[in-house]
Amino acid sequence: MPPVSQSDLKRVRALHQKKARVEAGRFLVQGRKVVAELLASTWDVEAIYATEDAARFVADAARARRAPVNVLPAHELERLGTFEKGNELVAVAVSREQAKFRLPAPGELVLALDGVHDPRNLGGLLRIADWFGVKRVMCSQDCIEVTNPKVVQSAMGSMFRVQVRYAQLAAELSECAAAGVALYLADMGGTSVYDAALTRPAVLVLGSESHGLSDVLRALSAEVLGVPRVGRAESLNVAMAASALCSEFARRTGAPK
Amino acid sequence: MPPVSQSDLKRVRALHQKKARVEAGRFLVQGRKVVAELLASTWDVEAIYATEDAARFVADAARARRAPVNVLPAHELERLGTFEKGNELVAVAVSREQAKFRLPAPGELVLALDGVHDPRNLGGLLRIADWFGVKRVMCSQDCIEVTNPKVVQSAMGSMFRVQVRYAQLAAELSECAAAGVALYLADMGGTSVYDAALTRPAVLVLGSESHGLSDVLRALSAEVLGVPRVGRAESLNVAMAASALCSEFARRTGAPK
Repeated sequence: MPPVSQSDLKRVRALHQKKARVEAGRFLVQGRKVVAELLASTWDVEAIYATEDAARFVADAARARRAPVNVLPAHELERLGTFEKGNELVAVAVSREQAKFRLPAPGELVLALDGVHDPRNLGGLLRIADWFGVKRVMCSQDCIEVTNPKVVQSAMGSMFRVQVRYAQLAAELSECAAAGVALYLADMGGTSVYDAALTRPAVLVLGSESHGLSDVLRALSAEVLGVPRVGRAESLNVAMAASALCSEFARRTGAPK
Repeated sequence: MPPVSQSDLKRVRALHQKKARVEAGRFLVQGRKVVAELLASTWDVEAIYATEDAARFVADAARARRAPVNVLPAHELERLGTFEKGNELVAVAVSREQAKFRLPAPGELVLALDGVHDPRNLGGLLRIADWFGVKRVMCSQDCIEVTNPKVVQSAMGSMFRVQVRYAQLAAELSECAAAGVALYLADMGGTSVYDAALTRPAVLVLGSESHGLSDVLRALSAEVLGVPRVGRAESLNVAMAASALCSEFARRTGAPK
């Protein structure tokens, strides 16, 4: 394998930034756990940079995927990754083209995220989707991009299993409604999810109340669903709300197809 | 009001560190939303430091609580708070002495957290507790301290309403069991929470599997409860699991007393 040049490393470091990720169609996957998930997934891996120790850790999985592993001194790795400290394993993964829009299949539950800007929230939501068998997540265009390193980190591998599509939410939700797909809008003041009729196929919309999306959804007669509040917290964050709502969907409507 | 001296500010900045918080019995509450929650709570407020604009925002609430507001130039505030940027409002709150141990009351649901180190997780858990009407949270001694600025921030005011007690969990859980309180241990491989018998008073134990606490709980015949996995995520994080489990407790066993 040819030695790693400083310009290679510069190219990897450039992927800390969104602009370079979009232009190169590449993104970073870091740390032992998530790199192991990447190598166990069907996503393409361009290269791996690792300390000697971390290289041993990924050797078998990388060989199976024919992903080249470049061993670097610890101080080079430290500068290569985005973690505050402890960078020892950085993979460059190949972004996927966005899937085309398609209606939820019979029995399917899809999540739609509106204006989720916090990377840990998006990562957490993907993990929740993955746990509860939700295979597709629609994101409004202003959601944080899924290849942001903090999203990749907090999704803990779930981003390799859950399909994420950035879309004009209002338009696509209209199409869903026209096709008879049930629309639910999570809003903690809404009807108790424990009492509401839950049907599938369905789209559960979560997120901020920006863009007047709620107006669009009201016009589409989405049912507004909440997790009843017993105590005094002003709100649940979007990932906590998703967890409680998806759990109730799973309990009541079984495994999604 | 006497002018703010540099040594005052130094004393406030010292509260960024745990050691100083413990010694002084003071901690920082920051940002408009959480400071408003502090001022609406019964917690003591020693002083508030604010930009002119932020001072106007808190003026009425601070007057009602007789909390002195010190106006400082923006650049001084920027150095005073712990946020990466946008520091404009920093309150010094008075820590409370820890409550004594007492058994869960009839009908009560208590959370016990074992080894929760991540501040956003602890903050999120307090918010979940507060949402679902859980009034008391027991923490193992190695949980992150609740007055850590990141915990305070992510709890969004719920820490002023939910009582947190750091304790020898194993010993106190034994006392609970001996008194006939139901113990539940969250473990995603456990019995489905949808199918399990849920009773109160109860303690729901969440967290890492460190310290062999699970062994202690097994000896105490805690029921192991999980949220059934439909998809392929390896785990849910502790806050997501808590949200789904507390939601099911709330649905099945009603509002806690």
